[in-house]
Amino acid sequence: MKNKMIEGHLRKAFTFIEPGPVTLVTANDGSQDYLMVISWIMAMDYIPHCHIALSTGPWNETYTAMMKTKECVISIPSASMAKDIVEMGVESSSETNKHRKHKLRKKKGSIVKASLIDNCIASLECKVVDTIDAYGLVILQCEKLWVNPELNAAPLLHANGDGTFRVDNDTILDYHKIMQQWTPEGSQRFYKD
Amino acid sequence: MKNKMIEGHLRKAFTFIEPGPVTLVTANDGSQDYLMVISWIMAMDYIPHCHIALSTGPWNETYTAMMKTKECVISIPSASMAKDIVEMGVESSSETNKHRKHKLRKKKGSIVKASLIDNCIASLECKVVDTIDAYGLVILQCEKLWVNPELNAAPLLHANGDGTFRVDNDTILDYHKIMQQWTPEGSQRFYKD
Repeated sequence: MKNKMIEGHLRKAFTFIEPGPVTLVTANDGSQDYLMVISWIMAMDYIPHCHIALSTGPWNETYTAMMKTKECVISIPSASMAKDIVEMGVESSSETNKHRKHKLRKKKGSIVKASLIDNCIASLECKVVDTIDAYGLVILQCEKLWVNPELNAAPLLHANGDGTFRVDNDTILDYHKIMQQWTPEGSQRFYKD
Repeated sequence: MKNKMIEGHLRKAFTFIEPGPVTLVTANDGSQDYLMVISWIMAMDYIPHCHIALSTGPWNETYTAMMKTKECVISIPSASMAKDIVEMGVESSSETNKHRKHKLRKKKGSIVKASLIDNCIASLECKVVDTIDAYGLVILQCEKLWVNPELNAAPLLHANGDGTFRVDNDTILDYHKIMQQWTPEGSQRFYKD
């Protein structure tokens, strides 16, 4: 299957994080790929900073690789990958090649060493710009957005945190007319004027 | 209509934030109620700290009241309140009594001055324990959870950030057997052993 991701505009980067999906965070320390499943993640700025916060810690191999290289890729899987996502969340990257086992298609990005995941909805190339150790917070800056246009409206997976998950459906409610002054120019992914 | 919220166990507090819903954050500075709609919010710890991060800033009246009193209530509305939620997001608390206009039923909590919202799925009474001004981050500690058992599985609203929203449906995927070692004891809201 050929690669499908194309570059997206950074103005839209936060729109992949704000709905609160389960995400796949990958890092590569030069020797191998590491992948962790992260739900404790939050959009926190628009362009030019495109800051994203995530909460994790040194018990995680991917965290170690991310802190060593000061970079990572955040990919947004569709809910159709639910079982693979859950399994990847409990597997160890040093024991299991998660990309191979779960048929994640790697694609080279342009900023960071970790690969994009071409069968995801989007991949965000990010740099680690700060850490707030008292709370296990990592502050990322998204520097490049890649999107899979065919999957733009695919349902997302949301973790309840107790081992169960929600799926959002394909109904996109459009309130952009009410919110017009609060939505940054160029951020639209779903509404049409 | 009588009040329906009852006390919930703090072990479950993060399970209301982790799925990534749009939330209503209220504060009361002694003179009036303030309410802001927040999607940039993240679970970041289990008990005993129950830390939650949110990203906002001093342009918001509710933020000012929250920082003055060092406390707030986070309420989780169901997706059925979508239009009201969107309208409250663009209204000003000093010009509009949002509780009255949108028929939010106030109920007295036990820790903070701001009210619970009795027609929401849950209300979390929180203290402001830190701020990280460089990023507009507020670190909250949830000290009391209130839940509305009838609404436990109600669909949540998720913001795309461009003025459109997703709704999660009533299908709860159960993977707790795979994730058993990663889900804290007492956190379950949806699965049954």
